[in-house]
Amino acid sequence: MPTINTSELQAQFERLRSNKSFELFIISIIVISALVIGVKTYPLPPAVEQAIVILDWGITFFFLIEVSIRYLGDPNKKRFFHNGWNLFDTLIVIISLIPIDNSELALIGRLVRIFRVLRMVSIIPELRTLMNSLLAALPQLAYVLLMMFIIFYIYAAIGATFFASINPDLWGDIAVSMLTLFRVMTFEDWTDVMYETMKIYPLSWTFYLSFIFLSAFAFLNMIIGIVVNVMEEENANQAKAEALAAGEPTMKDLRDEIRTLRALMESRTRE
Amino acid sequence: MPTINTSELQAQFERLRSNKSFELFIISIIVISALVIGVKTYPLPPAVEQAIVILDWGITFFFLIEVSIRYLGDPNKKRFFHNGWNLFDTLIVIISLIPIDNSELALIGRLVRIFRVLRMVSIIPELRTLMNSLLAALPQLAYVLLMMFIIFYIYAAIGATFFASINPDLWGDIAVSMLTLFRVMTFEDWTDVMYETMKIYPLSWTFYLSFIFLSAFAFLNMIIGIVVNVMEEENANQAKAEALAAGEPTMKDLRDEIRTLRALMESRTRE
Amino acid sequence: MPTINTSELQAQFERLRSNKSFELFIISIIVISALVIGVKTYPLPPAVEQAIVILDWGITFFFLIEVSIRYLGDPNKKRFFHNGWNLFDTLIVIISLIPIDNSELALIGRLVRIFRVLRMVSIIPELRTLMNSLLAALPQLAYVLLMMFIIFYIYAAIGATFFASINPDLWGDIAVSMLTLFRVMTFEDWTDVMYETMKIYPLSWTFYLSFIFLSAFAFLNMIIGIVVNVMEEENANQAKAEALAAGEPTMKDLRDEIRTLRALMESRTRE
Amino acid sequence: MPTINTSELQAQFERLRSNKSFELFIISIIVISALVIGVKTYPLPPAVEQAIVILDWGITFFFLIEVSIRYLGDPNKKRFFHNGWNLFDTLIVIISLIPIDNSELALIGRLVRIFRVLRMVSIIPELRTLMNSLLAALPQLAYVLLMMFIIFYIYAAIGATFFASINPDLWGDIAVSMLTLFRVMTFEDWTDVMYETMKIYPLSWTFYLSFIFLSAFAFLNMIIGIVVNVMEEENANQAKAEALAAGEPTMKDLRDEIRTLRALMESRTRE
Repeated sequence: MPTINTSELQAQFERLRSNKSFELFIISIIVISALVIGVKTYPLPPAVEQAIVILDWGITFFFLIEVSIRYLGDPNKKRFFHNGWNLFDTLIVIISLIPIDNSELALIGRLVRIFRVLRMVSIIPELRTLMNSLLAALPQLAYVLLMMFIIFYIYAAIGATFFASINPDLWGDIAVSMLTLFRVMTFEDWTDVMYETMKIYPLSWTFYLSFIFLSAFAFLNMIIGIVVNVMEEENANQAKAEALAAGEPTMKDLRDEIRTLRALMESRTRE
Repeated sequence: MPTINTSELQAQFERLRSNKSFELFIISIIVISALVIGVKTYPLPPAVEQAIVILDWGITFFFLIEVSIRYLGDPNKKRFFHNGWNLFDTLIVIISLIPIDNSELALIGRLVRIFRVLRMVSIIPELRTLMNSLLAALPQLAYVLLMMFIIFYIYAAIGATFFASINPDLWGDIAVSMLTLFRVMTFEDWTDVMYETMKIYPLSWTFYLSFIFLSAFAFLNMIIGIVVNVMEEENANQAKAEALAAGEPTMKDLRDEIRTLRALMESRTRE
Repeated sequence: MPTINTSELQAQFERLRSNKSFELFIISIIVISALVIGVKTYPLPPAVEQAIVILDWGITFFFLIEVSIRYLGDPNKKRFFHNGWNLFDTLIVIISLIPIDNSELALIGRLVRIFRVLRMVSIIPELRTLMNSLLAALPQLAYVLLMMFIIFYIYAAIGATFFASINPDLWGDIAVSMLTLFRVMTFEDWTDVMYETMKIYPLSWTFYLSFIFLSAFAFLNMIIGIVVNVMEEENANQAKAEALAAGEPTMKDLRDEIRTLRALMESRTRE
Repeated sequence: MPTINTSELQAQFERLRSNKSFELFIISIIVISALVIGVKTYPLPPAVEQAIVILDWGITFFFLIEVSIRYLGDPNKKRFFHNGWNLFDTLIVIISLIPIDNSELALIGRLVRIFRVLRMVSIIPELRTLMNSLLAALPQLAYVLLMMFIIFYIYAAIGATFFASINPDLWGDIAVSMLTLFRVMTFEDWTDVMYETMKIYPLSWTFYLSFIFLSAFAFLNMIIGIVVNVMEEENANQAKAEALAAGEPTMKDLRDEIRTLRALMESRTRE
């Protein structure tokens, strides 16, 4: 009966994919794949280059098998691609299969081989958790980021309007101006930018200083926001954990105890 | 009856201004106005420039109507301008109405058009809250900022007194010296500034290092002050919220319960 | 009777020195004194310069009177100079009295006039508190600072030993090396310093990177130490304030209430 | 009997090594040894150089005796080298004994003499505690550091692949690319690096900005992680200390008191 056959196979695959040494084996293949990428950036003798091409196809083939096993071993085939990491792994493998002779696709092929290093994150649970928590922090920052974008946009518009004729490389249009402002925000040779415009507009230091203060203030606010959020969660988790661990009664429990006592007493009084 | 007419109109306007799709429509107009500002920084064919001039007047006209509706829809006309955001919106609209032919006013006209992007902050409640909380943090910093200003002023006076003859561009007078010190504080090519004065005064590194330590220390203190303030507020809010949410009795409630019990007992004893 | 006379005078001086408008008047004199210092850094016509010399003597004279009033108004003359701020104010005034014709003393005379701006800190209570809290944080940092000094010293010794022949301006001796390392720590053109030594010692990037990591780590540790200290104090203060404000009974109070109740009950049982 | 002799000697050594003035004496020798290292980086007359060589041997000899005393004074000889600090001290002393004539070993001999300054950390308990707490924080950071390494590796691979032909000094291979990226992360002349590649790939600013955001975000996460960890520990310690200090009963204690009361009452009711 084929149905039983399939489920047997699936169970076997499921056992395989949750096997600890299988996982370690995959991690070592990913490390080899990362090393291959690193080695390729050095000038190599032709023999080594050819060996690397073969090794590369071997890695691609192995990843294909590994993703297939994970897919076949999943009891719920539909939900497999709902998981972002599975989708990412599958895409990396499929794009790796495209031959990289064509010059246009060669670029994508090379990038995909580099992004295979990211599979490390998808395979090690601790890194996956870390990445998820990083991504989870982003939505909370949405409005602060929007605010910073508005600040950048306004200053870039002012800069492009007044300074474009002074130095078109830095202030030519609003996009270039935003890049220049990001440079100012990182304090990278920002005084060179300022001294240049101060020759024409002696008061333009107000433009730079107000921008630095505003962006630094908004940035600080963002960091404090994250810290407070993280700490609150930690505190909440800790408080719960403590209460559970110690079996400590709450204030409510105590009040209930006292009320029971009172009820008992009142019942006796009525007797 | 005109009175009823007016209040009917006002109610209608009030309904309109709190309408969600009306708000979205305003936001999209502001976004278009921001895009127009951005596009204007690129070299454009004359036809597009003319289209932009017309679009610009359209936006100004629309904003005029929108602010009028908000004003007419406000049940309390007097208090309308007590709100800083309403005042800001009205000023932006009125100054936009000034024709920008005159070269002097053209500058203001252009700046006002750029500041129209800030209307985004006045229209989106989350950004308004964020901005208010940023502004609310400022007064607490007043004394730290004054302290930093005093540190800057003293060092600038010393710098202008001793280094003015070495490099008048950097230390010519107290204002320029303060700008140079701000540059030193951001670590922007500060060693170039220092090496120059060390040729004449070999011990002048003490000037720079003590300034960096002092300003970094005061700055750090400022940040810690903000963090502690924010956290305290958060904690207070959280504690209140928890107490309210859980219906948790306080220590006082518990004591009162126990005292009631005792009174009951004592009354029985006296019987 | 002279004794009564003196104590009457003292009481009058004491009233004067704690007078709010007298304080505001002193602050405005200090502000004028600061402005004079600032103005002197600009090129001035001889008439203005002469006016400033006269104004300067006026300020010195006023400060002399003010400190005298504060001294005479103090009920405990001995303890007057135990207060660091009083000592500072007196020294500033006395050194200001030295004529600044002599070239050697002229330098000190000018510096003292600049340091008069610091009297702002000694006169405004909020700034004095801020300064005291800044100074109070220093001793806690003593060991971290010693640790950082050891890190700097070791790296400077290594740098001076190996790189002195490459660039004596940067690595000539241990003192210059420490200054160079401070420059590296502030990331100011640190790659220029590194690329230069990497030409001779290709592995010298390990020297810079390990130094940056170590010093950043120690610095971070210092900041976290301060933050934790400040927060702990805040929490302790807050907890006390809350307990006092709310008249909230403690756990102990509750236990005592319950025990009283039990004693009452047991006494009845024995009856 | 030699056994008694040895244990008597040991007890004497133990008393000596825990003697406060002996410790101060060692610290002063270490300070002299550090000063010798510093002095050697200056050009010296031959007589002084010779005196330093003799002083150096004196210090080495003294350290040999001191470590011997500590070793002989230790009641448990086996465990002596289990302590990292003892091992470090012994190694420093032994390597110092190697004559530094040979050019190869001279390098190591000089480095060891510099590392003798680190003995300061091993001798002062507060610095040892600080160092241990710094090292204890490292394992918690392992996964964040791995994540940062993966980010660096991927960006370095992309950089080496695309930019190697533009500037081989900065992007020649993956190792050099990682160093360049570290430079970009410290904002050191990062725009020079970017402007160079933007001439060939105008969109390469996305590479730099995404890298800066990612690495800053991961770095921030690391710092917040440390801060939260430190604070949690502090809070836990504080809570325990408070509970112990105040002899405050816990919620559980209160519940038990109430329950005892109830049991008493119920027993009376049954009578």
